[in-house]
Amino acid sequence: MDKEPDINRPSRRGSRSRKQARALTTPQIIAGVRRDIPPYILASEEGVDLVEEKAGDILQEIGIEFRGDKDALKLWKTAGADVKGERVRFDKGMLRDIIIATAPKHFVQHARNPDRSIVVGENNLVFAPGYGMPFVRDLDNGRRYGSIADFENIIKLTYASPYLHHSGGTVCEPVDLPANKRHLDMVYAHLRWTDKPFMGSVTTPERAEDSIAMARIAFGEDFVDKNCVIMGNINMNSPLVYDQAMSGSLRAYARANQCPVVVPFVLGGATAPVTMAAAVAQAYAEVLAGCALGQLERPGSPAIFGNFVTSVDLRSGSPTFGTPEPALGSYMAAQLARRIGLPIRCSGGYTSSKVPDAQSMQETVNSLNTAVMCGANFVLHAAGWLEGALTMSYEKLVLDADYLGALHVFVKGLKLDDNAFAMDAFREVGPGNHFFGCQHTLANYETAFYESELSDTQSFENWRDSGSKDSITRANAKWKEMLRTYEAPPIDPAIDENLQAFMAKKKETMPDIWH
Amino acid sequence: MDKEPDINRPSRRGSRSRKQARALTTPQIIAGVRRDIPPYILASEEGVDLVEEKAGDILQEIGIEFRGDKDALKLWKTAGADVKGERVRFDKGMLRDIIIATAPKHFVQHARNPDRSIVVGENNLVFAPGYGMPFVRDLDNGRRYGSIADFENIIKLTYASPYLHHSGGTVCEPVDLPANKRHLDMVYAHLRWTDKPFMGSVTTPERAEDSIAMARIAFGEDFVDKNCVIMGNINMNSPLVYDQAMSGSLRAYARANQCPVVVPFVLGGATAPVTMAAAVAQAYAEVLAGCALGQLERPGSPAIFGNFVTSVDLRSGSPTFGTPEPALGSYMAAQLARRIGLPIRCSGGYTSSKVPDAQSMQETVNSLNTAVMCGANFVLHAAGWLEGALTMSYEKLVLDADYLGALHVFVKGLKLDDNAFAMDAFREVGPGNHFFGCQHTLANYETAFYESELSDTQSFENWRDSGSKDSITRANAKWKEMLRTYEAPPIDPAIDENLQAFMAKKKETMPDIWH
Repeated sequence: MDKEPDINRPSRRGSRSRKQARALTTPQIIAGVRRDIPPYILASEEGVDLVEEKAGDILQEIGIEFRGDKDALKLWKTAGADVKGERVRFDKGMLRDIIIATAPKHFVQHARNPDRSIVVGENNLVFAPGYGMPFVRDLDNGRRYGSIADFENIIKLTYASPYLHHSGGTVCEPVDLPANKRHLDMVYAHLRWTDKPFMGSVTTPERAEDSIAMARIAFGEDFVDKNCVIMGNINMNSPLVYDQAMSGSLRAYARANQCPVVVPFVLGGATAPVTMAAAVAQAYAEVLAGCALGQLERPGSPAIFGNFVTSVDLRSGSPTFGTPEPALGSYMAAQLARRIGLPIRCSGGYTSSKVPDAQSMQETVNSLNTAVMCGANFVLHAAGWLEGALTMSYEKLVLDADYLGALHVFVKGLKLDDNAFAMDAFREVGPGNHFFGCQHTLANYETAFYESELSDTQSFENWRDSGSKDSITRANAKWKEMLRTYEAPPIDPAIDENLQAFMAKKKETMPDIWH
Repeated sequence: MDKEPDINRPSRRGSRSRKQARALTTPQIIAGVRRDIPPYILASEEGVDLVEEKAGDILQEIGIEFRGDKDALKLWKTAGADVKGERVRFDKGMLRDIIIATAPKHFVQHARNPDRSIVVGENNLVFAPGYGMPFVRDLDNGRRYGSIADFENIIKLTYASPYLHHSGGTVCEPVDLPANKRHLDMVYAHLRWTDKPFMGSVTTPERAEDSIAMARIAFGEDFVDKNCVIMGNINMNSPLVYDQAMSGSLRAYARANQCPVVVPFVLGGATAPVTMAAAVAQAYAEVLAGCALGQLERPGSPAIFGNFVTSVDLRSGSPTFGTPEPALGSYMAAQLARRIGLPIRCSGGYTSSKVPDAQSMQETVNSLNTAVMCGANFVLHAAGWLEGALTMSYEKLVLDADYLGALHVFVKGLKLDDNAFAMDAFREVGPGNHFFGCQHTLANYETAFYESELSDTQSFENWRDSGSKDSITRANAKWKEMLRTYEAPPIDPAIDENLQAFMAKKKETMPDIWH
């Protein structure tokens, strides 16, 4: 694809005055972060071979059903797959060859503000907020259905956080709008209230087309044909099924040269076998089919290997999140994705907790750390997720984003230059003294450590005297302050008008459908 | 050292009936866990070389002071170090050579119950609770000074958790006992109310000797001379100083063939330079000196490379915990420890939060995951720690222990055998159906996933209807139940009598000192 932007722009020399000028109106720009540390390697090459082999067995023997999508079946037949009714079986290596031949290893998703364009793939890391929650929750008003006002708030908070690089997609369901029209309002909100990259609708191929059409208004038809400006999160119907909504939406994004994120929905014990090796092999088979279909639709179009593998509490049947078995599965999935050369999406920020409590962060941090350590390129659900994606939490959104800031520092690794080794400091301080005031500390302290805005490090007495505020209470004040100081990024009034006109015209043609 | 016990005893064949018989009176026995996954490799070999080189520069040019410990200085002079006053400088490679020549790569710390003896080193992992807190906290009574009753409670809760393999040391300070006598009561409590391995006193060499003397009463003089039965956590006076209390205690443990855990106290920006590379190099220099001193005192005695590197909030001067920079430092420290062949202690469970809230678990899980991923052998502070080691939390103790259970599963890795790949399940279920009732699920569900006892995975409605209990509330009920059902492990009445007689006699000779 096209030339990579400098994703570490904040530290780029010479851009300081420009940055300072912009800082008056827009939040700090960090357009993704480059990972300078190696990924964690869980499995031997032989282990990865074995999973590839088993995925090949699944594709060859069981195959995948494409339900209600004749165009997809036609593409498969032409490509040489074994098509019987809606069931498609694949010779070993076929899907892999299709992907490797034309799918890009990395690509740029352009943002409305070019400074916020991200690189997806290889050693680049992008964080996006939670996706798909019908409910929202905050400390003041508790749990309730999401509205378009909530949707806009979450987008604004995401815009204000330097550590969320991507505006996400359905950051909550705006349930106060008709189900068949709300995708227009969601895409508009992503184009109007932020200038970060975003995701469009996937619930039907038509809504995918609408999303892409609005992106064309914002970015220009020709630009969109040549560049990725929108993603669609294709949640397939595991096990081993793509229904027409999903394969049709997938093909719509690919056809427009936009990026489908191809995500199996793999709950070990429910939509996949109860053992992780099988769940990962199944997910790999499903991803291969979706990504290859995108390449058949339009060779060279971008695609992301989506990894969503989790477990089920077999007492209750409820899915569980942030648990150890899916962490192991994610490490394997990332090794598979690197082998085939596709950018990988992982999910972090997972929890089944109902509130942003201790459990929520045990599960969230475990899954976020796994995503970062496995080498994920695009981390969806990185902030705000509660209750197995049923609820977007205002407080957890900012708590998670603050933790993502810490991960930004972690992925830059350990500096091992002369300044970092500080021999002069040892000479100056010597045994038994402290380094608080030494020259090396004075020269380095401002940039030495990540400064969390939400972690409380003060003494117990000071903490108590300032009201004994726990994390949730501090986060509540934080998001309110962020919304209070939010300023919308500028937009060309002509584009805004055209977007609104498109929406109005579309809505006129449809009755309101509420479910 | 001697033969390794089977540390994965719970899954050993043939031991089932014995286990079931024991299960009536004692909690599940997991005596450490064997790590079947590789450690995370952060730095290249050249990077590790560089840290070794800089640590060598520090040892050669700046050196280390041994204050008030003439015996230590004598040992260094004999070994060929450059001793000027209390400052000791070391030729490059000297300390490393001393350690590599005689220090064991792994050893057994024997527990009073042989089934609970642990292997320390190589691919073995042991978890111990927090250490050194003057305060305790629980949901009912809030924060208060620790007492011997609290101390015993924490030991009993640790005993009851299968995921804490080690009873720890000063699990809280029993401030209701005189400062100069409470070490006796602490060691007695570890010998009486649990049968897991434990740590003795280090605050003066005499108290170290008392601790070892009590271990001799419990295990027998000859056995103790030949086997490790007690550890001492030697917190040195960074930067680059051992005072007599620490080096004297260290030598006392080594002389008795017991294990000093040699732990620098490295707060970047305070007791070490503000850059992590220098902090790790300093810590490495300090560990080398302590571990080598132990070998000079008694060649072949066990020792642990202690890693405690953290950062400071430079606005407040307070230490911070669970932050990204020390995580990077820990990965480097573990690579150094493996290179020199010493078991490594890391700290997990860190937080500066005052309560077991979201912040506490962000920091705790980040540090626990780091400890596990870096390849730590002995994880101190793995449960209960709050407020930068000022407070032991009853609720956090059980929440952390529950998370340690998840880590037990994680370190066993991803099974890749035929059963795990479940091809028959795919044949049975096929596309679009679920795996809930399939044969493979029925055959595997009981052991498929870690079952947390404290994470809530039920639906929002069920959670709400059962009282909307957050993590802390559930943990509060859990520890109370654990104490209610606690039964003391048996002890030989003659040993108990001798321990009590030893304590009584010791206490008679001392006035009460309270600070």
